[in-house]
Amino acid sequence: MTKQERATRTRDALIKSAAREFDQHGYTLAKLSAISAGAGVSPGALHFHFDNKAAIATAVESEATTALRRTARIVYRQGSNALQNLADTSHSLARLLREDIVVRAGFRLSCSRGSRTDLNLRQEWQSCVQQRLAEAADEGLLAAGHGGQQDVVRTVVASTVGLEALCRDNDEWLSPDTVTSLWRTLLPMLAAPGTLAGLEPAGSSTVPAPRAHAPVG
Amino acid sequence: MTKQERATRTRDALIKSAAREFDQHGYTLAKLSAISAGAGVSPGALHFHFDNKAAIATAVESEATTALRRTARIVYRQGSNALQNLADTSHSLARLLREDIVVRAGFRLSCSRGSRTDLNLRQEWQSCVQQRLAEAADEGLLAAGHGGQQDVVRTVVASTVGLEALCRDNDEWLSPDTVTSLWRTLLPMLAAPGTLAGLEPAGSSTVPAPRAHAPVG
Repeated sequence: MTKQERATRTRDALIKSAAREFDQHGYTLAKLSAISAGAGVSPGALHFHFDNKAAIATAVESEATTALRRTARIVYRQGSNALQNLADTSHSLARLLREDIVVRAGFRLSCSRGSRTDLNLRQEWQSCVQQRLAEAADEGLLAAGHGGQQDVVRTVVASTVGLEALCRDNDEWLSPDTVTSLWRTLLPMLAAPGTLAGLEPAGSSTVPAPRAHAPVG
Repeated sequence: MTKQERATRTRDALIKSAAREFDQHGYTLAKLSAISAGAGVSPGALHFHFDNKAAIATAVESEATTALRRTARIVYRQGSNALQNLADTSHSLARLLREDIVVRAGFRLSCSRGSRTDLNLRQEWQSCVQQRLAEAADEGLLAAGHGGQQDVVRTVVASTVGLEALCRDNDEWLSPDTVTSLWRTLLPMLAAPGTLAGLEPAGSSTVPAPRAHAPVG
Protein backbone atom coordinates (compact mmCIF):
# COMPACT_ATOMS: atom_id res chain seq x y z
CA MET A 1 0.00 0.00 0.00
CA THR A 2 1.42 3.40 -1.01
CA LYS A 3 1.59 6.38 1.34
CA GLN A 4 -1.22 8.01 -0.69
CA GLU A 5 -3.46 4.93 -0.31
CA ARG A 6 -2.82 4.85 3.44
CA ALA A 7 -3.74 8.54 3.74
CA THR A 8 -6.98 8.02 1.81
CA ARG A 9 -7.86 5.04 3.96
CA THR A 10 -7.25 6.99 7.18
CA ARG A 11 -9.31 9.93 5.93
CA ASP A 12 -12.21 7.58 5.06
CA ALA A 13 -12.02 5.92 8.47
CA LEU A 14 -12.09 9.34 10.16
CA ILE A 15 -15.14 10.42 8.15
CA LYS A 16 -17.00 7.23 9.08
CA SER A 17 -16.06 7.53 12.73
CA ALA A 18 -17.12 11.21 12.73
CA ALA A 19 -20.46 10.25 11.17
CA ARG A 20 -21.08 7.77 14.00
CA GLU A 21 -20.13 10.37 16.59
CA PHE A 22 -22.36 13.11 15.03
CA ASP A 23 -25.23 10.64 14.59
CA GLN A 24 -25.08 9.63 18.25
CA HIS A 25 -24.27 12.90 20.03
CA GLY A 26 -25.07 15.68 17.54
CA TYR A 27 -22.63 18.26 16.24
CA THR A 28 -22.26 20.30 19.41
CA LEU A 29 -21.46 17.43 21.77
CA ALA A 30 -19.36 15.38 19.33
CA LYS A 31 -15.75 15.00 20.55
CA LEU A 32 -12.68 14.98 18.31
CA SER A 33 -10.95 12.55 20.71
CA ALA A 34 -13.81 10.05 20.25
CA ILE A 35 -13.61 10.49 16.46
CA SER A 36 -9.89 9.71 16.26
CA ALA A 37 -10.24 6.80 18.74
CA GLY A 38 -13.17 5.40 16.72
CA ALA A 39 -11.04 5.47 13.57
CA GLY A 40 -8.15 3.80 15.39
CA VAL A 41 -5.77 6.71 14.78
CA SER A 42 -4.00 9.27 16.97
CA PRO A 43 -5.36 12.82 17.54
CA GLY A 44 -2.33 13.99 15.53
CA ALA A 45 -3.43 11.94 12.51
CA LEU A 46 -6.89 13.53 12.74
CA HIS A 47 -5.37 17.01 12.76
CA PHE A 48 -3.22 16.12 9.76
CA HIS A 49 -6.43 15.64 7.75
CA PHE A 50 -8.85 18.11 9.39
CA ASP A 51 -8.25 21.47 11.07
CA ASN A 52 -11.20 21.26 13.42
CA LYS A 53 -14.68 19.83 14.03
CA ALA A 54 -16.29 22.11 11.43
CA ALA A 55 -13.90 20.81 8.76
CA ILE A 56 -14.68 17.17 9.46
CA ALA A 57 -18.43 17.92 9.57
CA THR A 58 -18.12 19.57 6.17
CA ALA A 59 -16.37 16.44 4.85
CA VAL A 60 -19.21 14.23 6.16
CA GLU A 61 -21.79 16.51 4.52
CA SER A 62 -19.87 16.48 1.29
CA GLU A 63 -19.69 12.65 1.17
CA ALA A 64 -23.42 12.46 1.91
CA THR A 65 -24.24 14.99 -0.78
CA THR A 66 -22.22 13.11 -3.37
CA ALA A 67 -23.88 9.79 -2.49
CA LEU A 68 -27.43 11.21 -2.48
CA ARG A 69 -26.97 13.10 -5.75
CA ARG A 70 -25.37 10.07 -7.42
CA THR A 71 -28.28 7.87 -6.39
CA ALA A 72 -30.87 10.38 -7.60
CA ARG A 73 -29.02 10.59 -10.93
CA ILE A 74 -28.84 6.82 -11.37
CA VAL A 75 -32.57 6.46 -10.71
CA TYR A 76 -33.33 9.36 -13.04
CA ARG A 77 -31.49 7.58 -15.87
CA GLN A 78 -33.67 4.48 -15.50
CA GLY A 79 -36.15 6.32 -17.70
CA SER A 80 -39.37 5.33 -15.93
CA ASN A 81 -42.13 7.88 -16.23
CA ALA A 82 -41.78 10.90 -13.94
CA LEU A 83 -44.21 9.69 -11.27
CA GLN A 84 -42.65 6.23 -10.98
CA ASN A 85 -39.29 7.93 -10.98
CA LEU A 86 -40.25 10.08 -8.02
CA ALA A 87 -41.38 7.02 -6.04
CA ASP A 88 -38.24 5.10 -7.04
CA THR A 89 -35.99 8.00 -6.03
CA SER A 90 -37.63 8.25 -2.60
CA HIS A 91 -37.13 4.50 -2.06
CA SER A 92 -33.46 4.68 -3.02
CA LEU A 93 -32.78 7.76 -0.87
CA ALA A 94 -34.62 6.20 2.09
CA ARG A 95 -32.44 3.14 1.74
CA LEU A 96 -29.27 5.22 1.69
CA LEU A 97 -30.39 7.16 4.78
CA ARG A 98 -31.25 3.88 6.52
CA GLU A 99 -28.13 1.91 5.69
CA ASP A 100 -25.32 4.41 5.33
CA ILE A 101 -24.25 6.17 8.51
CA VAL A 102 -22.20 8.78 6.59
CA VAL A 103 -25.21 9.71 4.45
CA ARG A 104 -27.54 9.86 7.43
CA ALA A 105 -25.22 11.97 9.57
CA GLY A 106 -24.31 14.22 6.65
CA PHE A 107 -27.94 14.77 5.69
CA ARG A 108 -28.84 15.77 9.25
CA LEU A 109 -25.82 18.04 9.59
CA SER A 110 -26.81 19.80 6.38
CA CYS A 111 -30.35 20.33 7.75
CA SER A 112 -29.28 21.57 11.18
CA ARG A 113 -26.24 23.57 10.06
CA GLY A 114 -28.19 24.81 7.03
CA SER A 115 -28.05 28.45 8.00
CA ARG A 116 -24.25 28.35 8.40
CA THR A 117 -23.41 26.73 5.07
CA ASP A 118 -24.76 26.99 1.55
CA LEU A 119 -25.82 23.37 1.57
CA ASN A 120 -29.33 22.31 2.47
CA LEU A 121 -30.13 18.83 1.21
CA ARG A 122 -33.76 19.14 2.26
CA GLN A 123 -34.12 22.04 -0.16
CA GLU A 124 -32.48 19.98 -2.88
CA TRP A 125 -35.06 17.25 -2.29
CA GLN A 126 -37.78 19.85 -2.57
CA SER A 127 -36.44 20.97 -5.96
CA CYS A 128 -36.24 17.35 -7.09
CA VAL A 129 -39.93 16.76 -6.20
CA GLN A 130 -40.90 19.99 -7.93
CA GLN A 131 -39.03 19.05 -11.10
CA ARG A 132 -40.39 15.49 -11.30
CA LEU A 133 -43.97 16.67 -10.78
CA ALA A 134 -43.54 19.35 -13.44
CA GLU A 135 -42.31 16.61 -15.80
CA ALA A 136 -45.25 14.40 -14.80
CA ALA A 137 -47.60 17.28 -15.66
CA ASP A 138 -45.86 17.70 -19.05
CA GLU A 139 -46.16 13.98 -19.70
CA GLY A 140 -49.92 14.16 -18.92
CA LEU A 141 -49.56 11.77 -15.98
CA LEU A 142 -51.24 13.90 -13.31
CA ALA A 143 -54.89 13.68 -12.36
CA ALA A 144 -57.00 16.78 -12.78
CA GLY A 145 -59.18 17.90 -9.91
CA HIS A 146 -56.81 18.11 -6.97
CA GLY A 147 -56.08 21.61 -5.77
CA GLY A 148 -53.31 22.58 -8.16
CA GLN A 149 -49.71 21.57 -8.55
CA GLN A 150 -48.36 23.69 -5.68
CA ASP A 151 -50.59 21.78 -3.24
CA VAL A 152 -49.29 18.48 -4.56
CA VAL A 153 -45.63 19.52 -4.35
CA ARG A 154 -46.12 20.67 -0.77
CA THR A 155 -47.85 17.44 0.21
CA VAL A 156 -45.19 15.18 -1.31
CA VAL A 157 -42.35 17.26 0.18
CA ALA A 158 -43.98 17.42 3.62
CA SER A 159 -44.80 13.72 3.80
CA THR A 160 -41.35 12.53 2.69
CA VAL A 161 -39.53 15.00 4.96
CA GLY A 162 -41.87 13.81 7.72
CA LEU A 163 -40.71 10.20 7.25
CA GLU A 164 -37.10 11.32 7.75
CA ALA A 165 -38.00 13.38 10.83
CA LEU A 166 -40.00 10.51 12.36
CA CYS A 167 -37.19 8.07 11.60
CA ARG A 168 -35.03 9.84 14.20
CA ASP A 169 -37.23 8.25 16.89
CA ASN A 170 -38.02 5.01 15.12
CA ASP A 171 -36.20 3.47 12.13
CA GLU A 172 -39.40 1.89 10.84
CA TRP A 173 -40.50 5.21 9.35
CA LEU A 174 -37.93 4.87 6.55
CA SER A 175 -38.47 1.14 5.99
CA PRO A 176 -39.46 -0.02 2.47
CA ASP A 177 -42.83 -0.96 3.93
CA THR A 178 -43.57 2.57 5.20
CA VAL A 179 -42.30 4.31 2.06
CA THR A 180 -44.51 1.95 0.03
CA SER A 181 -47.46 2.83 2.31
CA LEU A 182 -46.97 6.48 1.50
CA TRP A 183 -46.98 5.96 -2.26
CA ARG A 184 -49.93 3.56 -2.05
CA THR A 185 -51.83 6.53 -0.61
CA LEU A 186 -50.35 9.33 -2.70
CA LEU A 187 -50.17 7.77 -6.18
CA PRO A 188 -53.95 7.24 -6.61
CA MET A 189 -54.35 10.91 -5.74
CA LEU A 190 -51.56 12.12 -8.03
CA ALA A 191 -51.96 9.94 -11.10
CA ALA A 192 -54.43 10.29 -13.96
CA PRO A 193 -56.75 7.26 -13.97
CA GLY A 194 -55.17 5.66 -17.05
CA THR A 195 -51.67 5.96 -15.56
CA LEU A 196 -52.26 4.43 -12.14
CA ALA A 197 -52.31 0.75 -13.12
CA GLY A 198 -48.74 0.97 -14.45
CA LEU A 199 -47.31 2.49 -11.25
CA GLU A 200 -45.61 0.46 -8.53
CA PRO A 201 -45.74 2.04 -5.02
CA ALA A 202 -43.01 -0.34 -3.84
CA GLY A 203 -40.66 0.96 -6.55
CA SER A 204 -39.60 -0.48 -9.93
CA SER A 205 -37.59 -3.66 -9.71
CA THR A 206 -35.08 -2.15 -12.14
CA VAL A 207 -33.78 0.35 -9.60
CA PRO A 208 -30.31 -0.72 -8.46
CA ALA A 209 -29.39 -0.78 -4.79
CA PRO A 210 -27.43 2.33 -3.87
CA ARG A 211 -23.76 1.76 -3.11
CA ALA A 212 -23.46 2.18 0.63
CA HIS A 213 -20.28 3.07 2.49
CA ALA A 214 -18.81 -0.15 3.83
CA PRO A 215 -19.23 -0.45 7.59
CA VAL A 216 -16.19 0.49 9.64
CA GLY A 217 -14.62 -2.56 11.28
CA MET B 1 -49.46 42.45 44.17
CA THR B 2 -48.93 39.71 46.77
CA LYS B 3 -45.66 37.84 47.20
CA GLN B 4 -47.32 34.79 45.64
CA GLU B 5 -48.42 36.77 42.57
CA ARG B 6 -44.93 38.21 42.15
CA ALA B 7 -43.40 34.73 42.33
CA THR B 8 -45.81 33.41 39.71
CA ARG B 9 -45.08 36.35 37.45
CA THR B 10 -41.30 35.81 37.76
CA ARG B 11 -41.65 32.11 37.07
CA ASP B 12 -43.72 32.82 33.92
CA ALA B 13 -41.19 35.39 32.70
CA LEU B 14 -38.36 32.86 33.23
CA ILE B 15 -40.23 30.19 31.28
CA LYS B 16 -40.83 32.56 28.36
CA SER B 17 -37.23 33.75 28.38
CA ALA B 18 -36.00 30.13 28.49
CA ALA B 19 -38.26 29.25 25.55
CA ARG B 20 -36.68 32.06 23.51
CA GLU B 21 -33.19 30.91 24.49
CA PHE B 22 -33.90 27.21 23.68
CA ASP B 23 -35.62 28.17 20.40
CA GLN B 24 -32.64 30.22 19.30
CA HIS B 25 -29.66 28.17 20.56
CA GLY B 26 -31.02 24.68 21.28
CA TYR B 27 -30.94 22.94 24.65
CA THR B 28 -27.21 22.22 24.77
CA LEU B 29 -26.00 25.75 24.05
CA ALA B 30 -28.69 27.61 26.00
CA LYS B 31 -27.22 29.64 28.88
CA LEU B 32 -28.87 30.13 32.27
CA SER B 33 -27.32 33.63 32.51
CA ALA B 34 -29.07 34.61 29.25
CA ILE B 35 -32.35 33.17 30.55
CA SER B 36 -32.30 35.19 33.79
CA ALA B 37 -31.17 38.35 31.95
CA GLY B 38 -33.94 37.87 29.36
CA ALA B 39 -36.51 37.67 32.16
CA GLY B 40 -35.06 40.76 33.82
CA VAL B 41 -34.23 38.91 37.06
CA SER B 42 -31.03 37.96 38.88
CA PRO B 43 -29.39 34.52 38.54
CA GLY B 44 -30.37 34.00 42.19
CA ALA B 45 -34.06 34.49 41.35
CA LEU B 46 -33.73 31.89 38.59
CA HIS B 47 -32.21 29.40 41.04
CA PHE B 48 -35.00 30.08 43.53
CA HIS B 49 -37.46 28.71 40.94
CA PHE B 50 -35.38 26.14 39.04
CA ASP B 51 -32.51 23.91 40.17
CA ASN B 52 -30.81 23.70 36.78
CA LYS B 53 -31.27 23.86 32.99
CA ALA B 54 -33.03 20.48 32.86
CA ALA B 55 -35.64 21.70 35.37
CA ILE B 56 -36.46 24.82 33.38
CA ALA B 57 -36.59 22.80 30.13
CA THR B 58 -39.06 20.44 31.79
CA ALA B 59 -41.18 23.44 32.81
CA VAL B 60 -41.21 24.73 29.19
CA GLU B 61 -42.20 21.28 27.93
CA SER B 62 -44.91 21.03 30.51
CA GLU B 63 -46.43 24.42 29.57
CA ALA B 64 -46.33 23.44 25.89
CA THR B 65 -47.97 20.10 26.60
CA THR B 66 -50.77 21.71 28.56
CA ALA B 67 -51.42 24.28 25.82
CA LEU B 68 -51.38 21.72 22.98
CA ARG B 69 -53.60 19.25 24.82
CA ARG B 70 -56.05 21.99 25.83
CA THR B 71 -56.33 23.16 22.22
CA ALA B 72 -56.86 19.64 20.91
CA ARG B 73 -59.56 19.13 23.54
CA ILE B 74 -61.35 22.38 22.69
CA VAL B 75 -61.42 21.53 18.98
CA TYR B 76 -62.58 17.99 19.73
CA ARG B 77 -65.58 19.37 21.65
CA GLN B 78 -66.69 21.43 18.62
CA GLY B 79 -68.39 18.23 17.48
CA SER B 80 -67.56 18.42 13.77
CA ASN B 81 -67.27 15.07 12.06
CA ALA B 82 -64.01 13.24 12.69
CA LEU B 83 -62.34 14.22 9.40
CA GLN B 84 -63.13 17.91 9.72
CA ASN B 85 -62.03 17.66 13.32
CA LEU B 86 -58.65 16.30 12.30
CA ALA B 87 -58.12 19.18 9.83
CA ASP B 88 -59.33 21.72 12.41
CA THR B 89 -57.01 20.30 15.08
CA SER B 90 -54.00 20.51 12.76
CA HIS B 91 -54.82 24.16 11.95
CA SER B 92 -55.12 25.06 15.63
CA LEU B 93 -51.93 23.26 16.62
CA ALA B 94 -50.04 24.84 13.69
CA ARG B 95 -51.22 28.24 14.86
CA LEU B 96 -50.04 27.55 18.42
CA LEU B 97 -46.63 26.37 17.17
CA ARG B 98 -46.37 29.43 14.95
CA GLU B 99 -47.44 32.08 17.45
CA ASP B 100 -46.45 30.82 20.87
CA ILE B 101 -42.73 30.64 21.56
CA VAL B 102 -43.24 28.52 24.72
CA VAL B 103 -45.28 25.95 22.77
CA ARG B 104 -42.80 25.84 19.91
CA ALA B 105 -39.73 25.50 22.11
CA GLY B 106 -41.46 22.97 24.38
CA PHE B 107 -42.63 20.86 21.45
CA ARG B 108 -39.12 20.72 20.00
CA LEU B 109 -37.55 19.94 23.36
CA SER B 110 -39.97 17.06 23.82
CA CYS B 111 -39.01 15.70 20.38
CA SER B 112 -35.26 16.01 20.84
CA ARG B 113 -35.15 15.06 24.52
CA GLY B 114 -37.74 12.32 23.91
CA SER B 115 -35.47 9.47 24.84
CA ARG B 116 -34.59 11.09 28.18
CA THR B 117 -38.13 11.84 29.34
CA ASP B 118 -41.47 10.08 29.13
CA LEU B 119 -42.91 12.86 27.04
CA ASN B 120 -42.97 12.75 23.27
CA LEU B 121 -45.53 15.14 21.82
CA ARG B 122 -44.95 13.85 18.30
CA GLN B 123 -46.13 10.43 19.46
CA GLU B 124 -49.18 12.04 21.06
CA TRP B 125 -50.02 13.66 17.73
CA GLN B 126 -49.69 10.27 16.08
CA SER B 127 -52.20 8.77 18.53
CA CYS B 128 -54.54 11.69 17.91
CA VAL B 129 -54.47 11.10 14.12
CA GLN B 130 -54.99 7.39 14.64
CA GLN B 131 -57.99 7.97 16.91
CA ARG B 132 -59.69 10.54 14.65
CA LEU B 133 -59.26 8.33 11.58
CA ALA B 134 -60.65 5.32 13.46
CA GLU B 135 -63.66 7.48 14.39
CA ALA B 136 -63.97 8.63 10.77
CA ALA B 137 -64.04 4.97 9.68
CA ASP B 138 -66.74 4.23 12.29
CA GLU B 139 -68.75 7.21 11.07
CA GLY B 140 -68.50 5.88 7.48
CA LEU B 141 -66.64 9.00 6.33
CA LEU B 142 -63.62 7.31 4.73
CA ALA B 143 -63.34 6.43 1.05
CA ALA B 144 -62.90 2.79 0.16
CA GLY B 145 -60.12 1.83 -2.20
CA HIS B 146 -57.04 3.49 -0.77
CA GLY B 147 -54.48 1.14 0.63
CA GLY B 148 -55.97 0.50 4.05
CA GLN B 149 -56.21 2.54 7.18
CA GLN B 150 -52.60 2.04 8.31
CA ASP B 151 -51.37 3.63 5.07
CA VAL B 152 -53.63 6.61 5.61
CA VAL B 153 -52.55 7.11 9.24
CA ARG B 154 -48.90 6.99 8.19
CA THR B 155 -49.43 9.50 5.39
CA VAL B 156 -51.31 12.01 7.56
CA VAL B 157 -48.77 11.68 10.41
CA ALA B 158 -45.77 11.98 8.06
CA SER B 159 -47.10 14.98 6.15
CA THR B 160 -48.09 16.97 9.26
CA VAL B 161 -44.83 16.15 11.08
CA GLY B 162 -43.06 17.16 7.85
CA LEU B 163 -44.65 20.62 7.96
CA GLU B 164 -43.31 21.12 11.49
CA ALA B 165 -39.82 19.90 10.46
CA LEU B 166 -39.76 22.15 7.37
CA CYS B 167 -40.97 25.11 9.42
CA ARG B 168 -37.62 25.14 11.25
CA ASP B 169 -36.04 26.52 8.06
CA ASN B 170 -38.98 28.55 6.82
CA ASP B 171 -42.04 29.67 8.82
CA GLU B 172 -44.27 29.50 5.75
CA TRP B 173 -44.56 25.72 6.12
CA LEU B 174 -46.89 26.13 9.11
CA SER B 175 -48.88 29.03 7.64
CA PRO B 176 -52.67 28.64 7.30
CA ASP B 177 -52.15 28.62 3.54
CA THR B 178 -49.78 25.64 3.59
CA VAL B 179 -51.82 23.64 6.09
CA THR B 180 -54.88 24.28 3.88
CA SER B 181 -52.88 23.10 0.84
CA LEU B 182 -52.18 19.84 2.60
CA TRP B 183 -55.82 19.17 3.41
CA ARG B 184 -56.95 20.24 -0.07
CA THR B 185 -54.78 17.36 -1.32
CA LEU B 186 -55.46 14.82 1.43
CA LEU B 187 -59.21 15.21 2.02
CA PRO B 188 -60.33 14.15 -1.49
CA MET B 189 -58.23 11.04 -0.99
CA LEU B 190 -59.49 10.32 2.53
CA ALA B 191 -63.16 11.17 2.29
CA ALA B 192 -66.00 9.08 0.89
CA PRO B 193 -67.47 10.88 -2.15
CA GLY B 194 -70.66 11.95 -0.36
CA THR B 195 -68.71 13.44 2.54
CA LEU B 196 -66.21 15.59 0.66
CA ALA B 197 -68.48 18.52 -0.22
CA GLY B 198 -69.11 19.23 3.46
CA LEU B 199 -65.43 19.38 4.40
CA GLU B 200 -63.43 22.62 4.66
CA PRO B 201 -59.64 22.25 4.09
CA ALA B 202 -59.08 25.71 5.60
CA GLY B 203 -60.76 24.61 8.84
CA SER B 204 -64.24 25.25 10.25
CA SER B 205 -64.94 28.85 11.10
CA THR B 206 -66.27 27.72 14.49
CA VAL B 207 -62.83 26.78 15.78
CA PRO B 208 -61.71 29.35 18.35
CA ALA B 209 -58.22 30.86 18.26
CA PRO B 210 -55.97 29.12 20.77
CA ARG B 211 -55.00 31.21 23.77
CA ALA B 212 -51.37 32.08 23.18
CA HIS B 213 -48.89 33.03 25.89
CA ALA B 214 -48.67 36.79 26.00
CA PRO B 215 -45.38 38.08 24.59
CA VAL B 216 -42.79 39.05 27.15
CA GLY B 217 -42.26 42.82 27.28
